[in-house]
Amino acid sequence: MSACNGDDPRLRHIKTTIGVVPNFPKPGIMFQDITTLLLDPKAFKDTIDLFVERYKSKNISVVAGIEARGFIFGPPIALAIGAKFVPLRKPRKLPGQVISEEYELEYGRDCLEMHVGAVKPGEHALVVDDLVATGGTLCAAMNLLERAGAEVVECACVIELPDLKGRERLKGKPLYILVEAH
Amino acid sequence: MSACNGDDPRLRHIKTTIGVVPNFPKPGIMFQDITTLLLDPKAFKDTIDLFVERYKSKNISVVAGIEARGFIFGPPIALAIGAKFVPLRKPRKLPGQVISEEYELEYGRDCLEMHVGAVKPGEHALVVDDLVATGGTLCAAMNLLERAGAEVVECACVIELPDLKGRERLKGKPLYILVEAH
Repeated sequence: MSACNGDDPRLRHIKTTIGVVPNFPKPGIMFQDITTLLLDPKAFKDTIDLFVERYKSKNISVVAGIEARGFIFGPPIALAIGAKFVPLRKPRKLPGQVISEEYELEYGRDCLEMHVGAVKPGEHALVVDDLVATGGTLCAAMNLLERAGAEVVECACVIELPDLKGRERLKGKPLYILVEAH
Repeated sequence: MSACNGDDPRLRHIKTTIGVVPNFPKPGIMFQDITTLLLDPKAFKDTIDLFVERYKSKNISVVAGIEARGFIFGPPIALAIGAKFVPLRKPRKLPGQVISEEYELEYGRDCLEMHVGAVKPGEHALVVDDLVATGGTLCAAMNLLERAGAEVVECACVIELPDLKGRERLKGKPLYILVEAH
């Protein structure tokens, strides 16, 4: 699997900043909370640096971030590697022409939209979100990018819940994560 | 008023990248679309640089970004100036204990929430969003920060719609913007 070197002291610190909130948003869900990571400027900077070190020489021209927490991690990566940032949003949030993908998530159904024309055929794209659970959201995101003709190079998330086997739904594309949560 | 120097060539370029979508999300609204700015890596970088140049020596320890487009502009500013990033979210999105502020916006009513404990009394905060229209959202954001004991130094937005007089609702706090739209 693709995970960052666990011996990196930055990674050990990042892990300590992630909160766990039981029974949110539904009973039985152990919610992995990245907002406490964002309150630690060093942990947040290290998180972005670890992604940038991996992607800066990979010829990626599109960073696609998934609403809403992918908007927090995607733009700093896009800025650092000189890529455009493409927001993948919930329905009826993007003005103008969009393409849509429905998907199932850990607790319900949802839909992602992307602007027509945001991505050019042949562009190399990175998909960014805070967490991979069942992989449904990342899969919908990849479908949007591929329908627009882009090649998805990798998906990057801060946290993986490996017990939910989301990695298996990513159409064979690599997933890179910083922290595993059980 | 506080606006960036209009002769800065970066600013002239940023302005050309902002789209206008008529009748979104409702008839009669001329929607200012920053997603096209994000597709231009230089324009996006210049946007963040202009904010960072203004705030890097202002002793700001909190950048509060308003869901969802404030999540795109706030984190890169927070990372560059070494501040924490505090997401101000729509209801029932933040796990754990929150404080809430209801407000009226250009088309409807809404509510913002902030985590209890995210901000310490006496901290200096910057509020970030993509656009100021009537000022209702920014005002709710400032109320949340002030209820937590923080001092709001300024509000920073990419775009202002000055005809809607949002600036007058900001409780006397300064507003800094890059682009005016009419």
